[in-house]
Amino acid sequence: MTNLELLSQIVLPTDLHKFSDKELLQVAQEVRQAILERVSKTGGHFSSNLGTVELTVAMYAAYSLPPDKVVWDTGHQAYPHKLLTGRLERFDTLRKHKGMSGFLKRDEHELDVFGAGHAGTAISAALGFAAARDRVGGKEKVVAVTGDAAICSGMSWEALNHGGELNTDFTVVLNDNRMSIAPNVGALTSYFNRLRSRPQIQDLAQRAKSLAERMPNPIHRVASGLRHGITHYFAPEETGTIFEEMGFEYIGPVDGHDLPTLLEIFRNVRELDRPIFVHAITVKGKGYEVAEEDARKWHGVVPFDLQACEMAKSSGPVTFTQAFGDAAVECAELDPKMVAITAAMPDGTGLTNFAKQFPDRYYDVGIAEQHGVTFAAGQAAGGLKPFCAIYSTFLQRGYDQVLHDVCIQKLPVRFFMDRAGLVGDDGPTHHGAFDISFLTHIPHLVLLAPRDTTELREMARWTLGYDRGPTAVRYPRGASDDRLPELRTPIEFGRSEVLTQSDQSAATVVAVGSMVSVAWEAAQRLREEGISIDVINARWIKPIDLEAIARLGARSGRVITIEENARIGGFGQQVRDGLAEAGHDGIRVEVVALPDAFIEHGAQPIIRAEAGLSADALIERIKTRHRVG
Amino acid sequence: MTNLELLSQIVLPTDLHKFSDKELLQVAQEVRQAILERVSKTGGHFSSNLGTVELTVAMYAAYSLPPDKVVWDTGHQAYPHKLLTGRLERFDTLRKHKGMSGFLKRDEHELDVFGAGHAGTAISAALGFAAARDRVGGKEKVVAVTGDAAICSGMSWEALNHGGELNTDFTVVLNDNRMSIAPNVGALTSYFNRLRSRPQIQDLAQRAKSLAERMPNPIHRVASGLRHGITHYFAPEETGTIFEEMGFEYIGPVDGHDLPTLLEIFRNVRELDRPIFVHAITVKGKGYEVAEEDARKWHGVVPFDLQACEMAKSSGPVTFTQAFGDAAVECAELDPKMVAITAAMPDGTGLTNFAKQFPDRYYDVGIAEQHGVTFAAGQAAGGLKPFCAIYSTFLQRGYDQVLHDVCIQKLPVRFFMDRAGLVGDDGPTHHGAFDISFLTHIPHLVLLAPRDTTELREMARWTLGYDRGPTAVRYPRGASDDRLPELRTPIEFGRSEVLTQSDQSAATVVAVGSMVSVAWEAAQRLREEGISIDVINARWIKPIDLEAIARLGARSGRVITIEENARIGGFGQQVRDGLAEAGHDGIRVEVVALPDAFIEHGAQPIIRAEAGLSADALIERIKTRHRVG
Repeated sequence: MTNLELLSQIVLPTDLHKFSDKELLQVAQEVRQAILERVSKTGGHFSSNLGTVELTVAMYAAYSLPPDKVVWDTGHQAYPHKLLTGRLERFDTLRKHKGMSGFLKRDEHELDVFGAGHAGTAISAALGFAAARDRVGGKEKVVAVTGDAAICSGMSWEALNHGGELNTDFTVVLNDNRMSIAPNVGALTSYFNRLRSRPQIQDLAQRAKSLAERMPNPIHRVASGLRHGITHYFAPEETGTIFEEMGFEYIGPVDGHDLPTLLEIFRNVRELDRPIFVHAITVKGKGYEVAEEDARKWHGVVPFDLQACEMAKSSGPVTFTQAFGDAAVECAELDPKMVAITAAMPDGTGLTNFAKQFPDRYYDVGIAEQHGVTFAAGQAAGGLKPFCAIYSTFLQRGYDQVLHDVCIQKLPVRFFMDRAGLVGDDGPTHHGAFDISFLTHIPHLVLLAPRDTTELREMARWTLGYDRGPTAVRYPRGASDDRLPELRTPIEFGRSEVLTQSDQSAATVVAVGSMVSVAWEAAQRLREEGISIDVINARWIKPIDLEAIARLGARSGRVITIEENARIGGFGQQVRDGLAEAGHDGIRVEVVALPDAFIEHGAQPIIRAEAGLSADALIERIKTRHRVG
Repeated sequence: MTNLELLSQIVLPTDLHKFSDKELLQVAQEVRQAILERVSKTGGHFSSNLGTVELTVAMYAAYSLPPDKVVWDTGHQAYPHKLLTGRLERFDTLRKHKGMSGFLKRDEHELDVFGAGHAGTAISAALGFAAARDRVGGKEKVVAVTGDAAICSGMSWEALNHGGELNTDFTVVLNDNRMSIAPNVGALTSYFNRLRSRPQIQDLAQRAKSLAERMPNPIHRVASGLRHGITHYFAPEETGTIFEEMGFEYIGPVDGHDLPTLLEIFRNVRELDRPIFVHAITVKGKGYEVAEEDARKWHGVVPFDLQACEMAKSSGPVTFTQAFGDAAVECAELDPKMVAITAAMPDGTGLTNFAKQFPDRYYDVGIAEQHGVTFAAGQAAGGLKPFCAIYSTFLQRGYDQVLHDVCIQKLPVRFFMDRAGLVGDDGPTHHGAFDISFLTHIPHLVLLAPRDTTELREMARWTLGYDRGPTAVRYPRGASDDRLPELRTPIEFGRSEVLTQSDQSAATVVAVGSMVSVAWEAAQRLREEGISIDVINARWIKPIDLEAIARLGARSGRVITIEENARIGGFGQQVRDGLAEAGHDGIRVEVVALPDAFIEHGAQPIIRAEAGLSADALIERIKTRHRVG
């Protein structure tokens, strides 16, 4: 590791105040070096963090943190923030079990003032901090740093609208890297392009600076022309940007890697006490050539060789993501009315090939899940067969639209929820731990979970033919267990699949999706010990195949449900209620599910096992004659 | 009733084509007359519908419906639409049980192309229709009609952003009546004010018209100057409105009651094939003087005397809404850190007095529940005690923010959900039928339900003192049953209240919130027949007081839960699961809750009884010795 002479001295950002501007250039270099060296070893979010180095150093040197507050929108651009808040030493544990989170986290540091894994929250939260400060009479500054993709999400607009009206002292910094994970979309993107083509403020800033320097002291400078005219110094020819219309003073565009200018701007902006909007242009992957050239590929990385500039190609069994991508292409070929919608996740949802093959049937709506869902509802009402591919955790944003626009009207939108269950390293903001609970109570919706990638493709084709109402399919991050039996029964509405059964069964295990392979493994291992169990692949979470569960359960006397979802409102509670309601009092039901807690980050197998979702735990439970709870 | 000579001939909007422009003026008069006469008899949404008369007549005369499609944002402004689609005769049944819905409803009419009770969905849905048309090669026109409050909601912005990019043939009409239900808020409101101050297009349209008329035929007119310049004819001095930046051609502002100009505009706009934005200024309550003067009072009306211009003052017991309003004021007086947030519902949530007494501690964020929730989270993180008052059904919009911003970070935001349970006349888009199901699976959140208005005030004060994490309180529309016992135990974390118990109890009824009075009435009536039951006021939906339920349940052997929420994911399923998990196999549990269906509109007592949530149904169930399900 390179010796990080200055960075290693920094415990809090206020330590930056002791450095000269020239030394700050070195700090920025060291931050970049630290990211290159650390993240290439640990893996993590890469190119977006290389893009925010100078921006963070400039802000943190210009402001006083604490007590000032910077709220980061989606923490994965905040590694420089972590490095400037004394966490250099902990970087080796990034995203590891019990290690440092890949996002901001209030428990982790006092300057992680507001955590976020979903985009678009920072302006709202910052405005809340500003309102709290105004209420208690504080003087600290509040800054929200958002991105050009996040700002297109609805809640960012709601917050800008409110912020312009509140008209208090806070600043929004737009980190505009011209793409989120995939290239950005929407009319605002071309609007930003027009803004970017305006004269860069470097030259203008120079003019402003020499003017300001002729004034006697900072306060005077602020109170005079600069205070009311900073925009006009910086962008004299153009006014009327959207942000100005909404009550912000717009400053920009500025080169987000030009540290001296950024320092100048933030030192000035810090003196202002009204809504300011700073527009900085950054380059994802800045300083690492191959990442600058293909920021999308280098957005999130596995450990790689820094010198060779190459990531290991992941091989291995087909993932659910790939299987869904293949299924989408198949379905498009089968039916010209099939279209696909993603919310800024073409790669993550597996739709990249679909987008290439069927560009006019592919809609990337940006980080706009609410609109994406209702747009799909409109398409379904217009006679199409929309496949709406949104991660389980991000569909939380569209919950009302699923209920109010899709399900009340019984429109045949097909939802495909990748990342259902525990996702691993990204942690609690990204786990798909709740979709069974937030979807099954919605009337008209049917919900499925495949045991493996082949079944996912079959379910996708099944939904293509089902026009009577909305459907949703949930499936986990990663690949499926290829040790499951290849023989399979066709998908039938509401019918589960019995994988193995026995007259001497000690228990009937009803497994949902990713847990089928856990149940299957348990069955194999128990057989070696002479114990037989039934294994049912639930397939349908709604409606539940109670008939099959009751039939096998009546024989074994014991039903164990297992699912990778919260227990409350989950599959197991509904099986228990359904069996009791149908009068099956003789069947004991045990529910295995995620506990009522947010699950921390860590490798999938570790955190699944900790939550009791493992073959070991299931075997132990089955061998315990008396139910232990 | 006045004779509605022309209106009574209209079955479909295409019937308008046979009328001259002069006759259309009479049609508009008749539509207004019909609304005045009908709604004053039935009650319903009043002033917003008087505001859309000319707009609807002009659009429907200029377009061809069907096949053209008009998507209305929140159907309560669409009574003129209902009248122009052959539903004059059905108006007497407006919002009545089994009668005509107060909103658009796909089941009700082929031209109710997309229903909506929540604001902000129309542009997304219309864009979906436009995409479907483009895909299947249709030629029909698609129009979204939205309001100045709805367009500030995040999903409208997401849709505009996507619409500007898709760049297809569709039109957004902004019905700008300068207020939603309460006066509108936000920076965009002052932006709209600036737009409104631009020269009205009436004069300019005259110029454009005389120019266009000199051209040989309509197609030529459209293909020439007018096609590319309609904006500039209409608003030559100004460009660069936000909507133009987003890729729309902006036309406006236009007087939304000037039928000849509106006809001219929509006939021109219908010929265009790209995104158009028409900005019409309307007056809520237009044509009924007292409603024009106080549109907020006349937004939703009970039956009233049209000549006397007076609504009966509702008297009677205090409502939960009033009780919450009083509690908010009390809490503000107790603690200077308490603040209150509403999303465009100061009257509906009871915060009007609070707003007057504590203007600097009151935040109306507009129709922006997502932002409102995360703004509250930021305030809580900044040390305040936010009371976030959002109807149960509208908090669905903030589900992800409750989970991701509030609960993961365990921030002490207090949610107050009015209209939990069945709301009555507004129907399925407004029932608060799901909040127990969408909130209880979220870790860290505690959820309460008061049995009456006094208990609501006590719970509000309790949450004020609880800083360990987020809380939510749900309560129904209307007043509480004042026959409940006045003696009460203090609110204690996780402790239910036993209202009555007996050694000879036939059943232990555990009732949630609004259902406590139902259980109490059943107990009184059963006692007259010599049957005793236990009645527990649950108070806590999360955590559930399983200890008390098990204690009484073990004695009676039978626990019946009753709640005004969906069964799936509701209180009852969790009681059943909790008792089984704790090993109370000897207690039979029965769950009474809303069925897995969207409940139609109708008076609260009727639809509650239909769903089995009545003392009669409970008594019958208790008297049935063998559980029937």
